[in-house]
Amino acid sequence: MARDRAGVAVCPGSYDPVTFGHLDIIARTAALYERVIVAVVNLPTRKQQTLFSAEERCEMIGAEVEKLGNVQVKSFDRLIVDFAREHGANAIVKGLRAISDFEYEFEMNQLNRKMAPDVESIYMMSSPQYSFLSSSGVKEVATFGGDLTDLVPRAVATRLEDQLKR
Amino acid sequence: MARDRAGVAVCPGSYDPVTFGHLDIIARTAALYERVIVAVVNLPTRKQQTLFSAEERCEMIGAEVEKLGNVQVKSFDRLIVDFAREHGANAIVKGLRAISDFEYEFEMNQLNRKMAPDVESIYMMSSPQYSFLSSSGVKEVATFGGDLTDLVPRAVATRLEDQLKR
Amino acid sequence: MARDRAGVAVCPGSYDPVTFGHLDIIARTAALYERVIVAVVNLPTRKQQTLFSAEERCEMIGAEVEKLGNVQVKSFDRLIVDFAREHGANAIVKGLRAISDFEYEFEMNQLNRKMAPDVESIYMMSSPQYSFLSSSGVKEVATFGGDLTDLVPRAVATRLEDQLKR
Amino acid sequence: MARDRAGVAVCPGSYDPVTFGHLDIIARTAALYERVIVAVVNLPTRKQQTLFSAEERCEMIGAEVEKLGNVQVKSFDRLIVDFAREHGANAIVKGLRAISDFEYEFEMNQLNRKMAPDVESIYMMSSPQYSFLSSSGVKEVATFGGDLTDLVPRAVATRLEDQLKR
Amino acid sequence: MARDRAGVAVCPGSYDPVTFGHLDIIARTAALYERVIVAVVNLPTRKQQTLFSAEERCEMIGAEVEKLGNVQVKSFDRLIVDFAREHGANAIVKGLRAISDFEYEFEMNQLNRKMAPDVESIYMMSSPQYSFLSSSGVKEVATFGGDLTDLVPRAVATRLEDQLKR
Amino acid sequence: MARDRAGVAVCPGSYDPVTFGHLDIIARTAALYERVIVAVVNLPTRKQQTLFSAEERCEMIGAEVEKLGNVQVKSFDRLIVDFAREHGANAIVKGLRAISDFEYEFEMNQLNRKMAPDVESIYMMSSPQYSFLSSSGVKEVATFGGDLTDLVPRAVATRLEDQLKR
Repeated sequence: MARDRAGVAVCPGSYDPVTFGHLDIIARTAALYERVIVAVVNLPTRKQQTLFSAEERCEMIGAEVEKLGNVQVKSFDRLIVDFAREHGANAIVKGLRAISDFEYEFEMNQLNRKMAPDVESIYMMSSPQYSFLSSSGVKEVATFGGDLTDLVPRAVATRLEDQLKR
Repeated sequence: MARDRAGVAVCPGSYDPVTFGHLDIIARTAALYERVIVAVVNLPTRKQQTLFSAEERCEMIGAEVEKLGNVQVKSFDRLIVDFAREHGANAIVKGLRAISDFEYEFEMNQLNRKMAPDVESIYMMSSPQYSFLSSSGVKEVATFGGDLTDLVPRAVATRLEDQLKR
Repeated sequence: MARDRAGVAVCPGSYDPVTFGHLDIIARTAALYERVIVAVVNLPTRKQQTLFSAEERCEMIGAEVEKLGNVQVKSFDRLIVDFAREHGANAIVKGLRAISDFEYEFEMNQLNRKMAPDVESIYMMSSPQYSFLSSSGVKEVATFGGDLTDLVPRAVATRLEDQLKR
Repeated sequence: MARDRAGVAVCPGSYDPVTFGHLDIIARTAALYERVIVAVVNLPTRKQQTLFSAEERCEMIGAEVEKLGNVQVKSFDRLIVDFAREHGANAIVKGLRAISDFEYEFEMNQLNRKMAPDVESIYMMSSPQYSFLSSSGVKEVATFGGDLTDLVPRAVATRLEDQLKR
Repeated sequence: MARDRAGVAVCPGSYDPVTFGHLDIIARTAALYERVIVAVVNLPTRKQQTLFSAEERCEMIGAEVEKLGNVQVKSFDRLIVDFAREHGANAIVKGLRAISDFEYEFEMNQLNRKMAPDVESIYMMSSPQYSFLSSSGVKEVATFGGDLTDLVPRAVATRLEDQLKR
Repeated sequence: MARDRAGVAVCPGSYDPVTFGHLDIIARTAALYERVIVAVVNLPTRKQQTLFSAEERCEMIGAEVEKLGNVQVKSFDRLIVDFAREHGANAIVKGLRAISDFEYEFEMNQLNRKMAPDVESIYMMSSPQYSFLSSSGVKEVATFGGDLTDLVPRAVATRLEDQLKR
C-alpha cells in the first residue's frame, strides 16, 4: 500500500549484533513511519555483558539502514520511555518472535506504561524466515564456526568472526 | 505525548459483544491514528456462531466509540487484508492479552502477510486490568448471573442479559 | 505431615467424567482441609455439552470419595464464587496440569476476584503421572476402544463404555 | 546425507485437507524411513466434524505423495497405537508447529505410551515457512475467498473451493 | 469471607528485593492461615548473586509485614521442604504471574514432592496490577533511574537507590 | 514391538550431569536405532560454565549406557550438524520436557536446518516421571543437600556431592 508515512518511531534493543531479523522489523517500521530512530541500549545491565560496545553496535546498524533513507541510529542510557519522549516519538516498535519474547515484552510493556502512560508501544510479528533468529543464537553459531550467511549481513559476520578470535 | 495523528488503522474482531478490553485498545489506537475503522466480522465461520448479529454488534460498539470522534464501525465479510486495503489503511491493529492470543495472532499474521505483503499488522498489549477479559468469559459470567459492571459498558450488559433470557 | 486440618475447600469442575487426576487433587485437598465439597457444574454452557448428566457425574465421584471421609459432592448452577460463599468455604481449590490450564485458570481467577474479592482460589500442580490426563482425552480413548484402566476408576470406565454404545 | 532408509513410519492426522505443511513432514519422514503410511483418522470424534470424508482426504493425499515412491495412504478408526502395531511400524511421526501443538501432542504421547509402551512416537519441527499453516486456517482463508496458492496443492484448492460452494 | 484462620503457611522466595506483588501474595496468605512464615533463601545458588544480603532482605520484608500481625520472616539455607517440615507448616504458598513462573514452579513442585511427598505446595494467581512485576524488572527500572513508586514500598525504593549508587 | 533397528542416531547435550531423564531418552533411542552416539558438548559457550569437565561427563554417561550395548559416548566442539554428518548419522535425537524446551529446540532446529538441510532432527517427549527433571534442578537439589536417589544414578550422585564439597 503506497501511503503517506507520518510520525516518529523508536526501535529499541541491544542489537549485539544486529541480525537480518532486526533489520526486517526496522525496514517494516520505516515503511510505516516518516522517521525511525534505532535506539541501542548503552547502560550495561546486571545480567548480561555485550560482545560489542554500543558504538560498534551503532556502526554496524548504521551501515545497513543507510539505504532506507529515514532511519537514524542512537545509543541511549536512560529509560526507553524517556528516550522516546525526548525524541517526540509516536510509538516504540518491537518485534515478537516467540512466546518467550511475548512474555518478556508483556512485562516490560506494563512497566513502561506505569512509568509513562502517554508513550505507546506497538509490536510486529517477525517474518517466518527470521522467527528463529536471535543475537545469542548467532553468537553461538559463530562460536562453533557455523555459516552466518543467512543470519547477519556480511560486514557483521566479519566483525563477529574477528571479535571471537580475540 | 501530544502529537499529530496520521493515517488510518483498522481494528478487526468479532466483538460478540464488545468489552472494556476492546474499547481500551480502540481508544489507544484512536490516539495514534487520524482515523480508526472498527471492523466487525460478519461472515459466519465454521467453528463458532455469534450470540449477536453483526448489526447488533456494530450498534453496541458505535454507541461507545462515538465520543472518540475519529472512529467508525463497519462489518466485513471478506479477508481482513482486502478490507484494510480497500479502506486505504496503514495498519491492522490488534490487542494481545495472553499466550493463546499471541499464538493465534502469529499464525494469522503469517497467513495475512502471505495474502497481502503490503498490509502491516501491529499489536498492542492489553492493559493489565483487562488482560483477563474476553467476550466468551463475559458470556459465561452473564450465563451464571454474575455482575457485569466492570466488564462491559452498561448498555452491553443490558442487551446481554436480555439476549440470554430468550 | 500430621497436622490438624481446618476450614472448608470447594473443588469445582465439570468432571465429565471424573479421572484419577481429579481424584488425586480431591484427596490432596482433603488432607489439607477439614471438609471438602466437590462442586459439579450443572448449568450447561454454550460451548460444550456434557456426556453425563450432573446427577450421574455426582454419583460417580461420590462412590470414589466416600473412603476419604470428609468429602461431599454437590452440583451447582451459579457462579462458583457465590456457591463457595454460601458454603462458608475458605478457598476454591483447582488442579493445574499444563500451560493451557494455567492460562484459562488465570483468566477465571481474575474474573472471580472481580466478582468476589473475598473468595480466594488456590491451585495445586497435578502429579506427573496424571499431568496428561483430561476428561476429553479419556472420552477420546474410550471412543477408539482403548484401555481405560489407568485413567479412570473401574466403575467410571464401565459407565463410559455403556454410554458410548448408545 | 545419502543413507539407507529402514523401517516403517506412520504419519497420523485428520488432514482435512492436507496442506503443504503436512506434505513437508511426510516427505521428510519418507527420507528417513523405508516405508511411510499416512494414516487418516476416520472415526468421527465428538468435538469436530470434517469437511471432507475420509475417502476424499485419502485421495487428495495419495495424489500428492505418489511421486515420493515409498508412501501409502490408509484411513483408520482405531487407536493409532493399535494401527501402528498392526502395520509393524517402528515409529509414529508427527509435526510440531507451535506451543499449542506441543501441549496437545505431549498429552497424547503420554496417553499413547500408557496404552502401548512399545510404540514410540517421534516429532519433527515444521519448516518455518509452514509453521503458521493449519487445515483450519486454510479453511478459514478459503471461506473468505483468499488465495490458497502457497498453502495447499492446486488440486486441493480446487476441491476446497468446490466443497465450500455447496 | 470472615472465617477462622488455621494452620501455618510458608512463603519462600529470594525477595531481592520484595515488591508490592510479593506483599500482595503474603497478605492474601495471611488472610487464609493462622500464621505465615516468609522464608528468604540464604544459600547462594550458582546462577545468581543477590543484590541485597539475606539479612537486608529479611529486614525490608519485616518492616512491611509487621502490620499484618501473623507474619514472621526467616532466612533459610536448606531445602524448602525441610524448612517447611521443621516449622510444622501445612503448606508452602507461592504466587504465579506468568507462563514462565508456571513452568518453573511446576518443575520445582515435582522435585519437592519427590523429596517430601507429605509437604503440599499451593499457588495463588497474582493480582492483575502486579502480574508484570518482578524483582529483576524493578532492579532494571532502578538502574535506568525510573520511578519506583508503584512497584516497591518507599523504604525499599530508597535502599535500592542507595545500593545502586555504590 | 520387536523390530530390526537400523541407522545411526546422535543424542547431543551438555549432560552436566546426566539424569535419569537423559538416560530414558537414550535408551528409547537405542531401541529405535542400530547405533547411538551420545554427543557431549565440549566447547564452553559464553552463557554457562559446566560443573564437570567434558571428560568427566562422558565417563559418567559411559558407565550407565554400557549395558545397552549399542551406545557410544563422544565429546564434540563443532556444530552438532557437522558432528552428525561426519558420523553418518540418520538423525539427531532430542528429548522435550516442557514448553521452554520446545521453544529453544524449535529455534535451534531452524538454525541447524539452515546450516545443514540434509540433517534431520527428531524429538521424543520425556516420560511423565522425568518431565520435571533437569541437570540444573539436580544441581540445585544437591546444593541444598536433598536426596538424589530418584533423580540421577548412584555413581553420579556421589560425584556430584564430592564436586560440590570442593
